[in-house]
Amino acid sequence: MRWVRFSLSGRTAFGILEGERVVEVAGDPFSDWDKTGQVHRFADVKVEVPVIPKTFYAVGLNYPQHVREVAAKRGVEPDLPSQPDVGYRANTGLIAHGAPIVIPADATEAVQYEGEIVAVIGKTAKGLSEDEALGCLLGYTIGNDVSERTWQKSDRTLWRAKNTDTFAPMGPWIETDVPDLDALETIVRVNGAESIRFLTNAMLFGIATFLSTISRYITLVPGDVLWMGTDGSSPNLKHGDVVDVEITGIGCLTNPVIKAT
Amino acid sequence: MRWVRFSLSGRTAFGILEGERVVEVAGDPFSDWDKTGQVHRFADVKVEVPVIPKTFYAVGLNYPQHVREVAAKRGVEPDLPSQPDVGYRANTGLIAHGAPIVIPADATEAVQYEGEIVAVIGKTAKGLSEDEALGCLLGYTIGNDVSERTWQKSDRTLWRAKNTDTFAPMGPWIETDVPDLDALETIVRVNGAESIRFLTNAMLFGIATFLSTISRYITLVPGDVLWMGTDGSSPNLKHGDVVDVEITGIGCLTNPVIKAT
Repeated sequence: MRWVRFSLSGRTAFGILEGERVVEVAGDPFSDWDKTGQVHRFADVKVEVPVIPKTFYAVGLNYPQHVREVAAKRGVEPDLPSQPDVGYRANTGLIAHGAPIVIPADATEAVQYEGEIVAVIGKTAKGLSEDEALGCLLGYTIGNDVSERTWQKSDRTLWRAKNTDTFAPMGPWIETDVPDLDALETIVRVNGAESIRFLTNAMLFGIATFLSTISRYITLVPGDVLWMGTDGSSPNLKHGDVVDVEITGIGCLTNPVIKAT
Repeated sequence: MRWVRFSLSGRTAFGILEGERVVEVAGDPFSDWDKTGQVHRFADVKVEVPVIPKTFYAVGLNYPQHVREVAAKRGVEPDLPSQPDVGYRANTGLIAHGAPIVIPADATEAVQYEGEIVAVIGKTAKGLSEDEALGCLLGYTIGNDVSERTWQKSDRTLWRAKNTDTFAPMGPWIETDVPDLDALETIVRVNGAESIRFLTNAMLFGIATFLSTISRYITLVPGDVLWMGTDGSSPNLKHGDVVDVEITGIGCLTNPVIKAT
């Protein structure tokens, strides 16, 4: 099932995507919902960020190739994490499928994509074992963890490198049916040309491990999102580019790029 | 004016604290509100976290003495920040005035308080100058940035050291009338005995500087909170302790400490 959050005629609602149609519901997939009887053409609705999380978790270095590439660019030795330490992000960076990534006027040219699978929590959970961890999820969506690499290097935190307004496209929907994470591929395209492809689940620490580890100390709540990091590297994005982050079986998140003047 | 968020008879509402009374409002101080005509004894209501922020900003090392003390404990040279880089926190750590700080069973003895002034954003703001920055605030509250120091040292991020459930007491209310930040003193007491006192505004980078810097890249929205860091050091907290963080002119945030078994 695909849950889409959308706006139409001045209201925002959740709906179930069925082919080219959106079946509107009252309520939300995180608590109670009922079909309203209203059905819209998907092409007619404005797609919104699928959920505004109470807490926005993001994993940093979680793919060996990415760790090595980042280290090489910074001229340091690769330093693979020895345990799953998660980070946090600003909700204000979130934008929907289709909305523009706006590069600030004072950013350098080194603004890059990071295509990531996003786990969406569906149930309140604490003290999850690894075996039961995926059971707390509603489903999965896609994130593009846009990053300004010079700020990432110069600042003590990732506050603006990864949290500048519009730097966190997420969507287009939440897919609840993902039977085999190992079967997923992440493909990123810039202006239609494939620039990277990797096995989505080839992580240092998997989704279940992070959920179990976090929930040992922190209560996960419905709507929380966990971005899982990315593999490989990215070309610099420039004004006029269009970035697709596709994850097979989930969907494709597309955002144009604008440079502010 | 003091805004208190409270629960009573199964509902949660905002109210204006007037002496020993809470004047209940409909709506909230971040948008529209009206007095409902209902008045409660403050002693009769359950105080809640004054606001659940859309984004929870927290400043790290921001007082020279604290930077030096932390460095000395870690056996490294003090490294004073050269620019205001903010961080983010998990909303699930937030607890109200009076609620217990629960130290996990597997935490070490090095669980400590950090008494902090918290700026509460009242208006949507982007691109603020330093001169106008404080104008976006609704007011101020108090935070206790509880920290497990061994995890702070061992983990790559502060994810559990400072974000474990209950590690972010905030409150008891939002004070809107703070005419002179330089006049404020922060006093922390453990079991009634004063353990530290410092000038609240003796920061490396002040509140206006942080608000201006953040808003250059990120839109501040009503309800966001910015915790400003702390000075000095703390004894280890243990089961049965009670911690007061008082900031003169704002209030006193009190929380008991429990060690989970």
